[in-house]
Amino acid sequence: MAVFTIRPIGVIRSERKSPEDAPKQGALTDQEAEVVVDPAYLPALDGLERRVAPAGEAVSVDAPHRKSGKIIVVCWMHGAERDRLKVHPRGQEDRPERGVFSTRSPHRPNPLSLHTATLLSIEGNVLRVRGMDAIEGTPVVDIKPHSPELDG
Amino acid sequence: MAVFTIRPIGVIRSERKSPEDAPKQGALTDQEAEVVVDPAYLPALDGLERRVAPAGEAVSVDAPHRKSGKIIVVCWMHGAERDRLKVHPRGQEDRPERGVFSTRSPHRPNPLSLHTATLLSIEGNVLRVRGMDAIEGTPVVDIKPHSPELDG
Repeated sequence: MAVFTIRPIGVIRSERKSPEDAPKQGALTDQEAEVVVDPAYLPALDGLERRVAPAGEAVSVDAPHRKSGKIIVVCWMHGAERDRLKVHPRGQEDRPERGVFSTRSPHRPNPLSLHTATLLSIEGNVLRVRGMDAIEGTPVVDIKPHSPELDG
Repeated sequence: MAVFTIRPIGVIRSERKSPEDAPKQGALTDQEAEVVVDPAYLPALDGLERRVAPAGEAVSVDAPHRKSGKIIVVCWMHGAERDRLKVHPRGQEDRPERGVFSTRSPHRPNPLSLHTATLLSIEGNVLRVRGMDAIEGTPVVDIKPHSPELDG
């Protein structure tokens, strides 16, 4: 089969500097971080400001898919082992190994990670998000609006 | 920034043969399709059988994150235009253009698509899923268990 080339469109800036610092499941944390988008892709952010979570406001129940305030940040886990097909779930060695496609382990053939995070603000090419466990320096490869209908 | 190489781990088999056949939002359809995994990655599927949706049974409310019966299939939309940074939402030309990162358009710098689909069965290296709008021949690059906590 063909092989494809992926080019980072940005990078994560976070106080979490190493995998040891990072929680296993970022959506369950309040960790804030920045997605710094390469200025070359600035036009691609147009419209995302509609997704910024209203501060302190409840999300509209009429149109939750438009006003959820959530985005999906797709990262490339550059420290992953791409040839590992089995892992101990959550790195707990007392648990039997399972196939990586049945886990959210970073170790997988194409080490993509999905981070559904709350979009707090956009300033120029910098998105501030909450609920992001990716560590400082992680390459970002895509950004999508989250849709409860499609993704929930 | 560095550039990364992505290798398909499988391919979509579907009755939908072209983008014109495909609905815009597969999760809103009952379209069934197969994810045919390269046999080299068979060990990586181990454990995913626990994710198969129980036929006709309600999903457990006690552990919805384990028993949701949903997986996320990550595809590479090989027909996409990677240099387009703005699109008309859902291809509707009467709507003003927006940045691709604020849409789910296939056209984006790294044309990854996320498909949250119901896992109906696993037979060897073939996963049968419902709610999949990717067309016949679309390369698959990752498979993950869906988690309402992380992804919902």
